[in-house]
Amino acid sequence: MKITNIVVVSPKYKQLEKMIVAKNLPNNFRFLPEVEVTEEDLRWADAFVAFNTKTQFDYNHVKWVHSLGAGVDSLLFKKQWNEDVLLTRTICSFGQRIAEYCLSYILKDLQYHDQFQQAKTHKKWEPITPKLLSGQKVMIYGTGEIGQKTAQLFSSFGVEVYGVSLSGKQKDYFKEVISINNHLAQLSDINYVINTLPLTESTDKLFNDHFFKRVSNIGFLNVGRGKSIDEQALLLALNDDYVRFAVLDVFAIEPLPEDNPLWSHPNVAITPHISAVTTPNEGVDCFVETLKNIEANKPLHNKVDVNKGY
Amino acid sequence: MKITNIVVVSPKYKQLEKMIVAKNLPNNFRFLPEVEVTEEDLRWADAFVAFNTKTQFDYNHVKWVHSLGAGVDSLLFKKQWNEDVLLTRTICSFGQRIAEYCLSYILKDLQYHDQFQQAKTHKKWEPITPKLLSGQKVMIYGTGEIGQKTAQLFSSFGVEVYGVSLSGKQKDYFKEVISINNHLAQLSDINYVINTLPLTESTDKLFNDHFFKRVSNIGFLNVGRGKSIDEQALLLALNDDYVRFAVLDVFAIEPLPEDNPLWSHPNVAITPHISAVTTPNEGVDCFVETLKNIEANKPLHNKVDVNKGY
Repeated sequence: MKITNIVVVSPKYKQLEKMIVAKNLPNNFRFLPEVEVTEEDLRWADAFVAFNTKTQFDYNHVKWVHSLGAGVDSLLFKKQWNEDVLLTRTICSFGQRIAEYCLSYILKDLQYHDQFQQAKTHKKWEPITPKLLSGQKVMIYGTGEIGQKTAQLFSSFGVEVYGVSLSGKQKDYFKEVISINNHLAQLSDINYVINTLPLTESTDKLFNDHFFKRVSNIGFLNVGRGKSIDEQALLLALNDDYVRFAVLDVFAIEPLPEDNPLWSHPNVAITPHISAVTTPNEGVDCFVETLKNIEANKPLHNKVDVNKGY
Repeated sequence: MKITNIVVVSPKYKQLEKMIVAKNLPNNFRFLPEVEVTEEDLRWADAFVAFNTKTQFDYNHVKWVHSLGAGVDSLLFKKQWNEDVLLTRTICSFGQRIAEYCLSYILKDLQYHDQFQQAKTHKKWEPITPKLLSGQKVMIYGTGEIGQKTAQLFSSFGVEVYGVSLSGKQKDYFKEVISINNHLAQLSDINYVINTLPLTESTDKLFNDHFFKRVSNIGFLNVGRGKSIDEQALLLALNDDYVRFAVLDVFAIEPLPEDNPLWSHPNVAITPHISAVTTPNEGVDCFVETLKNIEANKPLHNKVDVNKGY
């Protein structure tokens, strides 16, 4: 596919301009903040590169849209997409970043960081033996690039890693991958659940009352999408010991509103959607790699299946 | 070597008795708490198996002493040892346990757990991008079983791991091992220092004012021995930004006295000597393995070099 003109839209458009210009690409570029994008830009462009825009642009005249983030639900969720327009997304180091984020919070739990911090405030010497990762049981929802990288990391420590996916197709690093139709039956002895799923019609409020009633005393980590959680059901589950603690990086509304009760729940850790931030460097590298693959008609590992939504 | 009679001394002697009796060994055993050990027991025994005794027993009449802990400084530090008496110690899962302990606190730092917890108390959405382990520089003091296992784990994440040892002999998983005579010159761009060294004459107060003046803004983790740290120098280094935070599992006096200023320092995490606890199961398995190796005259990987002190 021939790509001549490219529009890059981002709050960081000036920084991206410097970095992309330094790559000496033969293509023509326009770098803009979202509010300055005009219809003329969209007609001029062969490609539209953007980070998390709020505007619903008309992409019917471009050949290719590239998301500088991993999630494309702002483009696809409950929307129509013209299948003639290629859609790609940034993957790059997300897997490793999310895996280390999850590992940090599960180790925090196994190593009793909070308990020792609490004992310190009272100057109390109260030995508890930390638990090893080996032998823990982790269920990862989503077995794509991110879920699989996370599974690879945890399984290298001897963790028993199970996966849940739409198809239930077996994949490396998972002891077993379960179809989303059967997952509720497999949850009883799981220690930690990690959600990495994209937001689609089938993952909207997937973690609801039915789910939480099937788990016991788990650590629940959400690095997928906030709308996959029924927040009310999660709060009840936290109070009823179905969920021992939750670590949430994504929320139905971001930034999380000040009056949301998750802020003040003692067993909830909140991070501001940072588990899989792409640095501008990584975003640019992934975009340039994708551009070169498109121009060389090579296979694209980051092409979005617009019907699946990821 | 023939071992007929074995005395096992521990506060958990009843639990150990159950576990060892279940092994159906042909040897004769006596299981005792420390205060009930008599001279007659010591004359009767070929082997003396003990955990962290406070009494200075006379071991000259036994053939073998086995420590149910990893450290043997209570037997050797500033004391004489009859070299005819074999001394062994427990190693087993210590390496993995200490490696996961250290990893948990370094990830806590890189993932900004404290900053996000702080932001949560004010219900503030304040994104900071976590750092990946890859590219961090870690200096591990001690390149024995524990140091090496820790190096292996960190290097698997792309961490640049340096080692410091008495000999400076190169070892797997370390980018470079430095002799203890040259270590001060190599500290300027290190992000984290982990001490795993045993207490010997040459590691007594090794981490003193001279050391701390050479580092900049490091995370300092001590899982070796408390007496290797000059506490006063550490406190000054914490206040002068040579040390950004310290994670301490071992102390010159344990339990750490209530009036020790480390308890109230905001940038110090204190854990009650739990980074390398052996479960009774592991301790018994290691003892039985060592006994069988001794009886079969096989090489011992956990034999203590009483002149080196570890």
